[in-house]
Amino acid sequence: MNFHAAARNRMSAPDLEAILRQVGAERYHNRHPYHHRMVSGALSKGELQAWALNRYCYQAVIPRKDAMILTRAEDPAFRAEWRKRIEDHDGDDGWSGGIARWLHLATSLGLDVEAVKSEKLALPATRFAVGAYLSFCTNRTLLEAVASSLTELFSPVIIAERVPAMLAKYDYVTADTLAYFSKRPEQASRDSDFALAYVLEHADTPERQQGVIDALVFKCDILWAMLDALQHAYGEGRNIPPGAFQPETAR
Amino acid sequence: MNFHAAARNRMSAPDLEAILRQVGAERYHNRHPYHHRMVSGALSKGELQAWALNRYCYQAVIPRKDAMILTRAEDPAFRAEWRKRIEDHDGDDGWSGGIARWLHLATSLGLDVEAVKSEKLALPATRFAVGAYLSFCTNRTLLEAVASSLTELFSPVIIAERVPAMLAKYDYVTADTLAYFSKRPEQASRDSDFALAYVLEHADTPERQQGVIDALVFKCDILWAMLDALQHAYGEGRNIPPGAFQPETAR
Repeated sequence: MNFHAAARNRMSAPDLEAILRQVGAERYHNRHPYHHRMVSGALSKGELQAWALNRYCYQAVIPRKDAMILTRAEDPAFRAEWRKRIEDHDGDDGWSGGIARWLHLATSLGLDVEAVKSEKLALPATRFAVGAYLSFCTNRTLLEAVASSLTELFSPVIIAERVPAMLAKYDYVTADTLAYFSKRPEQASRDSDFALAYVLEHADTPERQQGVIDALVFKCDILWAMLDALQHAYGEGRNIPPGAFQPETAR
Repeated sequence: MNFHAAARNRMSAPDLEAILRQVGAERYHNRHPYHHRMVSGALSKGELQAWALNRYCYQAVIPRKDAMILTRAEDPAFRAEWRKRIEDHDGDDGWSGGIARWLHLATSLGLDVEAVKSEKLALPATRFAVGAYLSFCTNRTLLEAVASSLTELFSPVIIAERVPAMLAKYDYVTADTLAYFSKRPEQASRDSDFALAYVLEHADTPERQQGVIDALVFKCDILWAMLDALQHAYGEGRNIPPGAFQPETAR
């Protein structure tokens, strides 16, 4: 579907929501081959480590992009709702929220904590994608920044698929390893309900409707590009760029 | 070589230059498999088209990143030298310089001019890498921004390798197709001589020396990631992400 020509006329809110869900159905990274390989048990331990290490860069930037959204939001009620996201990721002391749980996931897979936190071994393509997400939330409209968060509409589905499959297929992955995911579906549902309602209310011209569709496509591109980079670097053939993480384990 | 620990003590200018050239020897994209396949004649026409179309996004942002460097430069003599780069790429009227010649290269390979100029069919990973380059020149020091241009030190070598090989190996590639490259070695040598002298003079502490080394590593990562993305999307197996250029020709 060509989402670029979707919004020539102003749509009803249900029609806009249907298109946004269609974007997810066609472009969310649960359709990516690396995800398919993950849930089928086909990833090597090195590939799972590379996923955790690279995805950490994404997790680590989330509270910063949410702070950027806060800086741009003039409505105190909006800010009060949105700041929950920062609390979820940083926790009370910075290291008791989602980022800490992702770090635990990575170290449970055998990675060194400082190596993960430094982000120095991440793929450059991961850094460029994560940077593009932060730039987007800095430079586009508040409405577009909010809309770019709507991939969370689809995250409960990918988590429900990922967690049982990983527990079943990789003997070194335990419920403790995946503690990050136990909190996320509830948080993501609360957050995406709020963001979707905001988007449907404020995308009140054809141009703004196209803007929010494009923002969601953009965000799907980010997540997809991150898995593309992992697949290229660590999948069959191994094309690890200079300076990036080198798994110790064989493929 | 671990370039991150290279500059604990202040080096002499010749030593710093040697490390910068070592970065190029190890990380410049003439070492990338996609380049090797290009010069060996192994790329399909679709792969060459994808290269031209994606690289256009890079070419198109160059005068903007150079303008960003101009905005940050307080020395009129520096600006007078640096602005030649913008003139080279835009030409007298915007479409008679390097960007126009790259567009000619792309259309000579059978691509539609508007499809190339719109950049809509480029890989998201290309856009993220190009955006990271512009952000780098916006947010880092002027010295680091200048140092990130030093990949031009190595471009005459890759051009000398690429042009005769492409003329010999692809019957649809002519000297007219590759007119872009006939101007570049002279311009790049002039520009990189100036930038290298600037960097060697102004990187006058260990921290600044490390900064310019890191900037050149970063820039090599950009060029490398662009070829990684092409290889993954259009090379063997074809993993073209949603919405990106679909070659008409078979592999």
